[in-house]
Amino acid sequence: MNQAENRIDQILKRGVAEVIVEEDFKKLLLSGKKLRLKEGFDPSSPDIHLGHMVALRKLRQLQDLGHQVVLIVGDWTAQIGDPSGASVTRPMLSAEQVKANAKTYLEQFFKIVDKDKTEVRWQSEWYANFKLEDVVRLSSKFTVAQMLARDDFAKRYAAGKPISVTELLYPMLQAYDSVMVKSDVEFGGTDQKFNLLVGRELQEMLGQKPQQVLMVPILVGTDGVHKMSKSLGNYIGVAEEPTEIFGKCMSIPDELILQYFELVTDIPATEIADFKNQMANGLVNPMVLKKRLARELITQLYSAAAAEEADAQFTRVVQRGEIPEDMPECRLENGESICVIDFIIKADLAKSKSEARRLLEQGGVEINSAKISDPGTTVKCGDIIKAGKRRYSKAV
Amino acid sequence: MNQAENRIDQILKRGVAEVIVEEDFKKLLLSGKKLRLKEGFDPSSPDIHLGHMVALRKLRQLQDLGHQVVLIVGDWTAQIGDPSGASVTRPMLSAEQVKANAKTYLEQFFKIVDKDKTEVRWQSEWYANFKLEDVVRLSSKFTVAQMLARDDFAKRYAAGKPISVTELLYPMLQAYDSVMVKSDVEFGGTDQKFNLLVGRELQEMLGQKPQQVLMVPILVGTDGVHKMSKSLGNYIGVAEEPTEIFGKCMSIPDELILQYFELVTDIPATEIADFKNQMANGLVNPMVLKKRLARELITQLYSAAAAEEADAQFTRVVQRGEIPEDMPECRLENGESICVIDFIIKADLAKSKSEARRLLEQGGVEINSAKISDPGTTVKCGDIIKAGKRRYSKAV
Repeated sequence: MNQAENRIDQILKRGVAEVIVEEDFKKLLLSGKKLRLKEGFDPSSPDIHLGHMVALRKLRQLQDLGHQVVLIVGDWTAQIGDPSGASVTRPMLSAEQVKANAKTYLEQFFKIVDKDKTEVRWQSEWYANFKLEDVVRLSSKFTVAQMLARDDFAKRYAAGKPISVTELLYPMLQAYDSVMVKSDVEFGGTDQKFNLLVGRELQEMLGQKPQQVLMVPILVGTDGVHKMSKSLGNYIGVAEEPTEIFGKCMSIPDELILQYFELVTDIPATEIADFKNQMANGLVNPMVLKKRLARELITQLYSAAAAEEADAQFTRVVQRGEIPEDMPECRLENGESICVIDFIIKADLAKSKSEARRLLEQGGVEINSAKISDPGTTVKCGDIIKAGKRRYSKAV
Repeated sequence: MNQAENRIDQILKRGVAEVIVEEDFKKLLLSGKKLRLKEGFDPSSPDIHLGHMVALRKLRQLQDLGHQVVLIVGDWTAQIGDPSGASVTRPMLSAEQVKANAKTYLEQFFKIVDKDKTEVRWQSEWYANFKLEDVVRLSSKFTVAQMLARDDFAKRYAAGKPISVTELLYPMLQAYDSVMVKSDVEFGGTDQKFNLLVGRELQEMLGQKPQQVLMVPILVGTDGVHKMSKSLGNYIGVAEEPTEIFGKCMSIPDELILQYFELVTDIPATEIADFKNQMANGLVNPMVLKKRLARELITQLYSAAAAEEADAQFTRVVQRGEIPEDMPECRLENGESICVIDFIIKADLAKSKSEARRLLEQGGVEINSAKISDPGTTVKCGDIIKAGKRRYSKAV
């Protein structure tokens, strides 16, 4: 196996759940052809976390071999809203919201993916003028039984739960995206397998070479239980502040350490194997590995310096209980003195008064390093307020 | 019950399989409101036969009470073609074909329905610019399970036969037609029940009063076995020549006589009851009743005179074996004498040479009342050629 083959093999093995069809994909990668790597993005959830990063890192690795990423912005779907029974209340996004969310997403996306080798395509390019006759032609290519074979549909259908007819259309639309951008490979989580394969089928029916499919494993969130997801709050966002990322990494259960190293860092497999041995034999404090993980991540997403700084701050503030050197300031109006709950909101240390009160009740609020419990306590200029483990603000 | 109520009751009872919701429909009919009576037409089958006439007569009866027919020309569906698995080879029609077929249909339609109280609407009026987002909104209102509850879908699904996703869309499109024309009542055969009810549902969802549904019985064809249908050849077309209609009526099985009287004539129920008694007791030759049926039909579709003439001709030609007084002529070129097979084609007495030969072999061809069997026999000016039971042509 030469060096190129070796590298391709690594890319297709590590952090990959399944490749369809692996042999074909390898041949394509060795053929010298510049491949079009399709990745979809739903503008109703613009924030990227480590769960998404698993696939995005694959894109980046393949870009580094010269291939082209084609990012599909699902603006059409987002503007229509998802009328499926499951999320009937999900609102449609306005064109402005979609645009704003896409901007947010792209900023985060390009922390991992190479912008110069990325083509951004908006779904509305082909769906804004997609007519009933196009829908008829598309939907005539698939049977109801084929669609109902999708695992989640099959379960809901068997359980007598409603599946709207529209929902059967969505996999075809995603597949049609592949046709429109002439995708060579599509990327997604294993939970996307059905939709990704519909893309293959449709391309073949319409005379294109069927795309290869690369599925990445589902990343477990920081709670150690559920799939990482923003709505569950068990996520580490790629746009979060380095100190936040550092803190969250420190909080993951020990049993996730190796998986995170494997899926979202470049630490060599041999080294990860060493970590495993050391942990199994109690030769390393897991916290040391978590710090390493945090530094690796922050280095990827920001810089080595930011990683060092976050590490130092964590040690200083959380481990030694010291107050950080830099912190945000919150300006009080002339001579104002406000109660601590109001200050916490004003300084954005909590999202709601009820959250602020909860922090207070749980002993998570300090003024000038002294824990306080009375919500009526007032804050004055010069006070340093700490809320939760790592959030500080100085009243000025 | 006053006279109006009485008439309404007759209309809703005779030749009606089911009304949904009968009480509501009656109230509407008594309310004095001018109702919009929706009937759909598929331009891929432009010929109207007695099977269709059952519903069209209902339309006419209600027009006579002052109501308005809205005929939906399914031009959009016809131009798209029906991509369902069952009839995958069914071709799309060109815009010209649709137009020509619609013309044919309307000529026949207005033999029964009052043209002055008919509004003709083309589906493409609303579907030509129906977009993907409209499809999404429409299809989100119905679940897959609801659609698969349709009897034919349920059977095919259970049998593992393919149902294309498109097929699930069609009932919704028909329902949307009802919304677009603000239908008060839709008419159809009992086999249309599901689709008609989807119309009710959709109208209600979109804030319209749900249409009433009037379903007519399925008319058995002249073979006495299957639903009357052009493709089975067991039909009597409303545009057929009076002599043809007469002959076909004479050929129906006796057990259909009463049903035909009930469904496609105005003969009073009391009289039909008499016929029934007479037949049961052998007091009438069924042929007498069939002649009556034929005359009633031809009177409706042409005129009383045409009915008398067809009757006389039938008696003369078929019963007495005489040659009809009038017959089509077929001009031979100067002094030409051609073989009988060619003449039969030229005179349009058969559609193909093989049909002509078959007639000849079966003893169905006569020249000047003499049965012939030699396909080489020549025809000359002045000869009268008979092919089949009732078809004549004179060589001139």
